[in-house]
Amino acid sequence: MSGPPPAVAAVRSAVRRVFSELPRETTALVACSGGADSLALAGAVAFEAPKLGIAAGGVTVDHGLQEGSGDRAEKVAEVLRGLGLDPVRSVAVRVGGGGGPEAAARRARYEALDEALAEHAPAVVLLGHTLDDQAETVLLGLARGSGARSLAGMAARTGDYLRPLLDLDRSTVREACSLMGLSPWEDPHNHDPRFARSRVRHEALPALESTLGPGIAAALARTAALLRSDADTLDALADALHERAREGAADGSLAVAPLERAEPSLRTRVLRRAALEAGCPAGALNARHVRELDRLVTQWRGQAHIDLPAGIRGRRAAGRVRFER
Amino acid sequence: MSGPPPAVAAVRSAVRRVFSELPRETTALVACSGGADSLALAGAVAFEAPKLGIAAGGVTVDHGLQEGSGDRAEKVAEVLRGLGLDPVRSVAVRVGGGGGPEAAARRARYEALDEALAEHAPAVVLLGHTLDDQAETVLLGLARGSGARSLAGMAARTGDYLRPLLDLDRSTVREACSLMGLSPWEDPHNHDPRFARSRVRHEALPALESTLGPGIAAALARTAALLRSDADTLDALADALHERAREGAADGSLAVAPLERAEPSLRTRVLRRAALEAGCPAGALNARHVRELDRLVTQWRGQAHIDLPAGIRGRRAAGRVRFER
Repeated sequence: MSGPPPAVAAVRSAVRRVFSELPRETTALVACSGGADSLALAGAVAFEAPKLGIAAGGVTVDHGLQEGSGDRAEKVAEVLRGLGLDPVRSVAVRVGGGGGPEAAARRARYEALDEALAEHAPAVVLLGHTLDDQAETVLLGLARGSGARSLAGMAARTGDYLRPLLDLDRSTVREACSLMGLSPWEDPHNHDPRFARSRVRHEALPALESTLGPGIAAALARTAALLRSDADTLDALADALHERAREGAADGSLAVAPLERAEPSLRTRVLRRAALEAGCPAGALNARHVRELDRLVTQWRGQAHIDLPAGIRGRRAAGRVRFER
Repeated sequence: MSGPPPAVAAVRSAVRRVFSELPRETTALVACSGGADSLALAGAVAFEAPKLGIAAGGVTVDHGLQEGSGDRAEKVAEVLRGLGLDPVRSVAVRVGGGGGPEAAARRARYEALDEALAEHAPAVVLLGHTLDDQAETVLLGLARGSGARSLAGMAARTGDYLRPLLDLDRSTVREACSLMGLSPWEDPHNHDPRFARSRVRHEALPALESTLGPGIAAALARTAALLRSDADTLDALADALHERAREGAADGSLAVAPLERAEPSLRTRVLRRAALEAGCPAGALNARHVRELDRLVTQWRGQAHIDLPAGIRGRRAAGRVRFER
């Protein structure tokens, strides 16, 4: 007896690996847009879950942004039910608020998924992001130029959200979808050059691939994994340093002595964090501000106060860096 | 009296900033290819050095890779002398050995510059790399997918090599060159698509700029600076951990106890370093090998040895990770 084709086997095996680490009573909910990636994920989940005795359902979100999106969501829900997933929900959301259309749709989607998680607790949501999505996320983070955390891409697990397909490339997952006999729906937004992710997918990544050679998506994904681990490590060490520096006062001020002895990347993380806690808005606090604060610690020559965003002032007095309005 | 045009002022001010941190008796040698960037640097150095009493010379390297390259190098040397730099050397090198033509040329160039440094000691070499060169270096590192260090780009200072123009964009530096009345020579290799850097410069970066918006080069340079600081911090902390883990044995083996308690990114750095010191070639030691070693520490269930490159074996015995041939 021959096994399934390699692409199908790869997707199923990725799902099995994630399932093997779930407690038995967990309900696994596939978040499915009807696109090839999440549809292949749904197919593999429907195949594997019963064998492992895991309850598996699906959620599809109707963003209400296109003509007929409600009907389409209902059709996706029918396909999921047809695969044997249960419960299956089609959830209509209202997309609105600030931060651009992609951010607003994302926020509405995660709110709906959070509700589904709560309703079926204990539950996890499985997302269909692939290695190529990860590469796109890294490139979008690169454009922000804001360091390791923004290059670290998406985690394989964030709380109750899991990404079983993060190590598989999109072509494999799409092939699996087609081999499973499932007909994907292609979101026109994925090809709409008004959206940054679409431009990255259809212009930036192909250009990098033709310039730097094939395998650039995999290289970006590897980079993301390494930088994620680095960022986690640095954040954990900065937590500990922040704790030590705060000792001796309850006003959010930092003792200079432990900061002086610390490595620069830990010190700047702690100074940045303390400025945020003092009320500086994250978007307005830039690298120059943090550098000025750092000089209060490492190049102290009796400087006056430093002007930070939102009318906050940083100053050094009595061996501590203090933040005042 | 009006000052110099902004582009010229920017390059001169960058040079002054570097000079202000040099001991007085240092000789500053501009490495000049005759291209616009290093020529603008030479012009600014020739202008600023006498005012600060710093001896300033120049070195141009003839790689011997193109017809008439010796004559051209001599012409560049004449231009440098005409600017008032002294001493000025044109050095012919032999490009050869492994690692591709770019790497070979680079190696030969740095050997020649190292010799000039030794001859004029105490001396520094000033290199004309700009913010755009930094962005290109980051993209080339990205294609390798090997983490923070390879994304950290070039340092503003590495030993006796300084890069005063690293925060200035290429267009500013080129404008300064032209405003200084200097005629640059354009290395045809910079436009030769056989060279990865040329492809990054003329294809990848413009594609990213048109996809992600202008400012991508600056974002890449900012990323490089942040990741460089992170990588330095992680390396320093890993040094200290390595030291602790090696205690109690002189055979390069590592005590498990301090590794177990350490943050993952420090532990994997130490394991990787120990494997390299045990004789694994850097090019052959991959992330999977390091992950397997890590499991000896964090998921110990009496595993057998792990096969590493070059016939090295990693194993855990008596509370230590050991490396054997």
